[in-house]
Amino acid sequence: MQIAILLYDRFTALDVVGPYDVLSHLPGARVTFVAERTGPVGNDVGSLRLYADAALADVPRPDVIVIPGGPGQPAHMGDGPVRRWLRDADGHSTWTASVCTGSLLLAAAGLLTGRRATTHWLVHDQLATFGVVPVQERVVADGKYLTAAGVSAGLDMAFTLAGRIAGDFTAQVVQLAHEYQPQPPYQAGDPATAPRAIVEAVLARREAIIS
Amino acid sequence: MQIAILLYDRFTALDVVGPYDVLSHLPGARVTFVAERTGPVGNDVGSLRLYADAALADVPRPDVIVIPGGPGQPAHMGDGPVRRWLRDADGHSTWTASVCTGSLLLAAAGLLTGRRATTHWLVHDQLATFGVVPVQERVVADGKYLTAAGVSAGLDMAFTLAGRIAGDFTAQVVQLAHEYQPQPPYQAGDPATAPRAIVEAVLARREAIIS
Repeated sequence: MQIAILLYDRFTALDVVGPYDVLSHLPGARVTFVAERTGPVGNDVGSLRLYADAALADVPRPDVIVIPGGPGQPAHMGDGPVRRWLRDADGHSTWTASVCTGSLLLAAAGLLTGRRATTHWLVHDQLATFGVVPVQERVVADGKYLTAAGVSAGLDMAFTLAGRIAGDFTAQVVQLAHEYQPQPPYQAGDPATAPRAIVEAVLARREAIIS
Repeated sequence: MQIAILLYDRFTALDVVGPYDVLSHLPGARVTFVAERTGPVGNDVGSLRLYADAALADVPRPDVIVIPGGPGQPAHMGDGPVRRWLRDADGHSTWTASVCTGSLLLAAAGLLTGRRATTHWLVHDQLATFGVVPVQERVVADGKYLTAAGVSAGLDMAFTLAGRIAGDFTAQVVQLAHEYQPQPPYQAGDPATAPRAIVEAVLARREAIIS
């Protein structure tokens, strides 16, 4: 089972590594980081580099596709190598998944038209402009497409996908090995329930966060 | 504020990137990945490489130290470059933190003697052999030392540490930007409450997980 995780300049690291560290532990899984060019790819903050082992053309038929989000996402919304690879690869994938603003790349490529999906709450209104049915849930499954809300939602998406791929038992074994029983010290992770001042502070930084 | 995150062969990626993606967004934060040698460092699964920008000697006085866990941890328990750097750097740090089996490296270096700490549930019994007071909590703070339970607990540790460093408001802003309101699809992340068959399956793989 080949799992291709896309990297592009200014991806968000947790969007990538959350799903990676779940899916890479499934039986028979072989993860390949794929980018326009092989070599190190820098993240949004600028202090982290992950290695892309394969160029897009080297991985034409992955079984599972994972598309992360990050401020570098808008650069790949138009016609170009990433979109062409995504459309071709998705034509053969068993599962196509995204984290955060990665779903906008799926949407722009026409893969989510008429389907239910989610994305980071700051850009949720963009989904409808691509003919996607926006759903305000943390993880949304529609056919072979799984989309996650912002950043850390990639972990919940990945355990959901792990269950679909390898069964509930194996997904739970990975969950226990990773001790994934979250206890956030604050309750500010959902814009619907976070303190209003926190929501306003994030909205004030909207452009810096998403682009 | 210089934050040094240690990399070593066969680290666990989420141990590193969970805290990274929280702490790197704090005002004034500058994260440096540090390893015995600069260059790419491979993780436990073997398909992910993170880039170390600095050698140990290049970062002698970080303000914050983060030590991840992973199957490569036992190789650094004895006297050697990692332990020597850790002891020296800790002598000047404002905060010293660990994720998963990273706390065993702190313990072996003598930094947690007489202090309360936690680690991955599979190796929790090792803490006492180093004179550490073992605590079965997800995040344990004792003075300037914050230790986290297994893998994903690094996220909860990092938000706790973010609050100590930058205040509750800023920590919550980062939490909302990362949409950290976890909803695991399964309830198997805690050995005390996970289904017995799941616990036994992880115990059967114990050696492969921790070494």
